[in-house]
Amino acid sequence: MAWAEEHEADVLVLPELCLTGYPLQDLAWREDFVDAAVARLEELAAASGRTATLVGTVARVPPQRSWDTRERTVSIAQAVLCDGEVRGIYHKVLLPTYDVFDEARNFASGRRPEALWRIGDAIAGISICEDMWSDDGPPEAQAAAGAEVILAPNASPFHRAKVEARLELASRVARRNGVPVVYVNCVGGQDELVFDGGSVVVDAEGELVHRARQFEPDRFCLELELEKHPLRVQATTVHVRRTRRTAPLAVAAEAPADQISDVEQVWRALVLGVRDFAGNNGFERAVIGLSGGIDSSVAAAVVAEALGPGRVLGVSLPVPETPPAAMADAERVATQLGIDHRRIDLGPMLGAIGDALAPERDPEIAARTEVLARGRAVILGEIADEDGRLWIAAGNKSELSIGGAAAFGDVAGHYAPLKDCPKTLVYALARWLNRETEMIPDAVVRRTPSLRARAGIELPPYSILDPIVEGYIERGEGVDRLSAAGFDRETVRGILQLVDDASFERKLLPPGVKVTRVAFGMDRRMPITNAWRPYRREGAELAPCPPDTEAAVAAPWDPVEVGESA
Amino acid sequence: MAWAEEHEADVLVLPELCLTGYPLQDLAWREDFVDAAVARLEELAAASGRTATLVGTVARVPPQRSWDTRERTVSIAQAVLCDGEVRGIYHKVLLPTYDVFDEARNFASGRRPEALWRIGDAIAGISICEDMWSDDGPPEAQAAAGAEVILAPNASPFHRAKVEARLELASRVARRNGVPVVYVNCVGGQDELVFDGGSVVVDAEGELVHRARQFEPDRFCLELELEKHPLRVQATTVHVRRTRRTAPLAVAAEAPADQISDVEQVWRALVLGVRDFAGNNGFERAVIGLSGGIDSSVAAAVVAEALGPGRVLGVSLPVPETPPAAMADAERVATQLGIDHRRIDLGPMLGAIGDALAPERDPEIAARTEVLARGRAVILGEIADEDGRLWIAAGNKSELSIGGAAAFGDVAGHYAPLKDCPKTLVYALARWLNRETEMIPDAVVRRTPSLRARAGIELPPYSILDPIVEGYIERGEGVDRLSAAGFDRETVRGILQLVDDASFERKLLPPGVKVTRVAFGMDRRMPITNAWRPYRREGAELAPCPPDTEAAVAAPWDPVEVGESA
Repeated sequence: MAWAEEHEADVLVLPELCLTGYPLQDLAWREDFVDAAVARLEELAAASGRTATLVGTVARVPPQRSWDTRERTVSIAQAVLCDGEVRGIYHKVLLPTYDVFDEARNFASGRRPEALWRIGDAIAGISICEDMWSDDGPPEAQAAAGAEVILAPNASPFHRAKVEARLELASRVARRNGVPVVYVNCVGGQDELVFDGGSVVVDAEGELVHRARQFEPDRFCLELELEKHPLRVQATTVHVRRTRRTAPLAVAAEAPADQISDVEQVWRALVLGVRDFAGNNGFERAVIGLSGGIDSSVAAAVVAEALGPGRVLGVSLPVPETPPAAMADAERVATQLGIDHRRIDLGPMLGAIGDALAPERDPEIAARTEVLARGRAVILGEIADEDGRLWIAAGNKSELSIGGAAAFGDVAGHYAPLKDCPKTLVYALARWLNRETEMIPDAVVRRTPSLRARAGIELPPYSILDPIVEGYIERGEGVDRLSAAGFDRETVRGILQLVDDASFERKLLPPGVKVTRVAFGMDRRMPITNAWRPYRREGAELAPCPPDTEAAVAAPWDPVEVGESA
Repeated sequence: MAWAEEHEADVLVLPELCLTGYPLQDLAWREDFVDAAVARLEELAAASGRTATLVGTVARVPPQRSWDTRERTVSIAQAVLCDGEVRGIYHKVLLPTYDVFDEARNFASGRRPEALWRIGDAIAGISICEDMWSDDGPPEAQAAAGAEVILAPNASPFHRAKVEARLELASRVARRNGVPVVYVNCVGGQDELVFDGGSVVVDAEGELVHRARQFEPDRFCLELELEKHPLRVQATTVHVRRTRRTAPLAVAAEAPADQISDVEQVWRALVLGVRDFAGNNGFERAVIGLSGGIDSSVAAAVVAEALGPGRVLGVSLPVPETPPAAMADAERVATQLGIDHRRIDLGPMLGAIGDALAPERDPEIAARTEVLARGRAVILGEIADEDGRLWIAAGNKSELSIGGAAAFGDVAGHYAPLKDCPKTLVYALARWLNRETEMIPDAVVRRTPSLRARAGIELPPYSILDPIVEGYIERGEGVDRLSAAGFDRETVRGILQLVDDASFERKLLPPGVKVTRVAFGMDRRMPITNAWRPYRREGAELAPCPPDTEAAVAAPWDPVEVGESA
């Protein structure tokens, strides 16, 4: 606010719910929480000056019943502060209740989509996030009523291709309504969501005027040419004085930020997600198991970047059967990343586990993947507890989709950064990390993934597996659609069956960063227990397929299409 | 349907969504799922005869946009089948989107609350679950339009005191509208929810005519006297023929089932929840750790009742420090319950863990509670995997509330039956189990809970802890309200702080049976990361308090007040 005053800005636009965080879930129902937000808003109002400041927060509204019998008494609000007071509040009209969003659960809906605001000699409309995504919503009502500009605060979480979708949206709204659009987004991570910033300003023709940086805090000051429109409703007057500027506005905006590549966006989302999850939950340091495989190596790189390499401990936990090359690679990864490394031999412990389970069990039991994974979790969990470290799990989306991770083993941990990254994307991240120097050793990238090396599991190459899973999870395509798209019918059926069968264990995963359109977590909500599993088939085996590391590494990695949601 | 035809019933009322299960969550968006439901309904319709049959299912409706920009194309429907065809469909109007419910997320809302159905010479309204809970909703619209009876299919999940609330609701709706109400509920468990049946029929004065059994499938055939009301809308004709009965209807209803006690309701909810979670997920057997403490003993009793004692394995996992009396008690519990029992000495394994972590760590590390808990999880997880057993975790709500369970340790498992039972309720369950013979040995009941025995944790008696947690979690009461209610202010503040701080680890819990108004799970949704934690206080210590097993056992256990939701 001080910075905006200093630049003699007429209006400062801050993101949706920037005062409270997003999403709020049941916090919205807590009286003390809403009290605190109201009190804090009053403080900000008292500190406001000539610049009209739009602050995102929650606001109490008259009790409202709509889709059910419960009264909602709180809205998602954008308060307009000026000259020491709250001049008015816009209440969000459209409340997304799909994917990761639950707004109709917790909030009352605004009843004045056409509300306008007089700020100096300009007439502005405020449309919050979902309000913009309708093709006949608040921006249209505001423009029809006489808005000369749409100010659009957002809390729009990242997923791949979202940034293009947002610019396209802002341009469409601007062109349709003949007004510039100022689209301002949050930056930061909360649990599974990363808000990636990347605010955009477009002119009345929909042309890009400015783009803010993605994945980091940014601010800019711009002058927009507004065209007078006939005013058809009473606008709330914020103030009517002329600007005190005698010289042109002290514009403070760099050249529009370049659009960073798809893979770099994913990388930065992962880093920001881990950094904020750690920081907001009081962790300065992290621990991760290092196997010499690609998942744990890339995950370790993410965490090293997020917290600083000196705050990360990689622990290798070999058993006698572990190939020495894998352990050497794990050590090289640690060296490359500059993180601490420790090797703890798991052999004696697994021997003790085998003894404990004898004589009734197979003496080879300790070699079982799940026992190994849970044994490692005991050690990693203890180090995490003792040192107060964030415990990082390395599982990727391909494996979690098809049930390739032991409950409370591979995916035990506080946070799973790669949880929503398909394996082909993990390879793409490794290649991106290696674009200048070899951060992830080539041997790690080329090692056959352990899931694939396991006896009894035969899978198609990841370059086939991943798009099938993507079609099923992200677009709801079944066997018919996917085989019509060119995939082998039996392979598709086998994969979908594995996905359905793994719904049980997917309920036990730690949070991770959402990077695709539909992650397992807040946005794909399936009952565990439901008799209807069309692709379930007892005892089915997939057709054998040779290990395909080479194929996966070589496969072109196609970005998904432009997204469609807020 | 055959049974109803046989009894020459005019109408058969089946529960809400009985064809598909409840809740559906994202299954509602799957085309193949809806296709399957539609196909199955057609089959049922083809099999229908003279009895008009009300089947709960999903139905496609014209695309509908309401609270956001997404089109919903599926409703929660009650189809009316008769004479081989679907005569019409009522679409649920009010869509609960609070607590465990997410209906506005997934469904379109019915637009004809006043719809009526002519069945023989009677005029009926259909109101589905939430439709009934408004004081001016579909039943009022239907009665005003001329309904002579309200048929009310429900999928109403259990929580304590819900059954009284339902009867009160049905009576209120009947009296207000001057019509009998036939309230029909589902029976069975799905994930965290248990549907407890307990259907009721009340006459136009709101007096109980019949109550079906709770927690088990039940059916009844009753004759209701209907009074003619003026008809103000066009009713959909199901059929207009007179009954073919020459004799009075073959009424098949026992005396109304007795209302079972609060604690027995909880017991039966737990048993049904475990039985259906196991059965629907393909588990015939279960494994549980037995410590000789009250939680694992009561949880084992639940599982033994649910699956049969011969299908349950209790495993005691002592370390050298474990008191022999506790192990003897664990064995007695197994004997009393008739379940299999095995003892596996954890000492050598913990020694190996200590060695693995040496020399950097405290040599006593293996004795740490979290290491012990995770070490036990390795063994139990392996037994569960190897034998295909459902892995039962024994944690109770009091401990999960205040962070007394190690991540991936105490609460590792597939299902946690007591997750929503406060400790005082666990004691009450033990007393109830012991009402005739001593199923849970007295020494187990009187043993100091391990959380309480741990160094460094000082807690008030459970008889104080539990109502504080209940006030905070179930009624959203803060320090002011709770201390005004008579609890020591500093104690309250300390407890609420522990609850807030434990939100991190509560995200990693397996599902369990909801028995209170607000469980941790589907119905209390809190972000992990949110800077606003008013009761968080670094390094705070609670005032010391003596162990209170005696007090907790002696404390009266008060039923909660009547609930208010569907």
